[in-house]
Amino acid sequence: MTRRDLALSRVYGLLEPGPVVLLTTSERGRANVMTMSWHTMMEFEPPLVGLVVSANDHSFAALRSTRECVLAIPTIALAAAVVGCGNTTGRKVDKFEAFGLTPVPARKVAAPLIAECHTNLECRVVDTRWVNRYNFFVVEVVKAWVDPACADLPTLHHKGRGRFMVAGRTIVLPSKMR
Amino acid sequence: MTRRDLALSRVYGLLEPGPVVLLTTSERGRANVMTMSWHTMMEFEPPLVGLVVSANDHSFAALRSTRECVLAIPTIALAAAVVGCGNTTGRKVDKFEAFGLTPVPARKVAAPLIAECHTNLECRVVDTRWVNRYNFFVVEVVKAWVDPACADLPTLHHKGRGRFMVAGRTIVLPSKMR
Repeated sequence: MTRRDLALSRVYGLLEPGPVVLLTTSERGRANVMTMSWHTMMEFEPPLVGLVVSANDHSFAALRSTRECVLAIPTIALAAAVVGCGNTTGRKVDKFEAFGLTPVPARKVAAPLIAECHTNLECRVVDTRWVNRYNFFVVEVVKAWVDPACADLPTLHHKGRGRFMVAGRTIVLPSKMR
Repeated sequence: MTRRDLALSRVYGLLEPGPVVLLTTSERGRANVMTMSWHTMMEFEPPLVGLVVSANDHSFAALRSTRECVLAIPTIALAAAVVGCGNTTGRKVDKFEAFGLTPVPARKVAAPLIAECHTNLECRVVDTRWVNRYNFFVVEVVKAWVDPACADLPTLHHKGRGRFMVAGRTIVLPSKMR
């Protein structure tokens, strides 16, 4: 996919709709990727995002120790990879290879971008005070990439147990809301 | 709408897809409602939800002082009310009346349910330690109502500035993910 810089002020519009994301990490040269849906915007700019990553997930330790990750937004075309990454563990599987995802070097963090995703957000952990209490990380998006041609493709929104709502059609209403 | 009890263990499946929600509060007998999208599940059961409510919002003070709210999920049929509630302030407008929303007494909290919403979640604030830092409230869902006939209707997912993705169609993939 084409990757272009996205202004950090526009990041919230990509995460606020609540899509499933793929979270990548890299620890001691080994990349991993997990599926996650428990995230929220916390600030417009610099963009802050809250993430819940279970302490049972293999990515948890890498995220805590390296304090870096990439949030990549998959379209419906990657549904099988999304579910595959959610049903396997990086302890046993190279998920990039297993699910046909291509890691691409990021600019500002060691965690890789995912070539097949239309949006990739490079993030640094900025607050770990609620990691022990809620497995909750606050990250700052420090670099954003998007393929403008694909940013309106349908995204996946997990309802649990492999059921996904597909968000495709966009409607526009007159609004002063940011 | 018909309202039936929903098991608290199933709440996450309604919020995890990231829909726009309407948040109601009630302070000194006066109900208010705001539109919000910055929320995330934080725990399955009891269901914990993280909410970012701007200190500029009229609902902020009511949420902080009463420590109660209702999260109601609107379908696309309420799009005009969703935008209307997001573009006005409860300081000046009775938004229930202005946008044709019907407040209904809740069971466990003073904040009202919204009759026109297929899902209503009664919530108590359980953690305010990040309110000053991030305007971030942790709430526990203490009672959940759903109209089973409507729970699969299309929901709205805000991309900013009045642009909403519509999530309708549901796909199901074999998955071990909760």
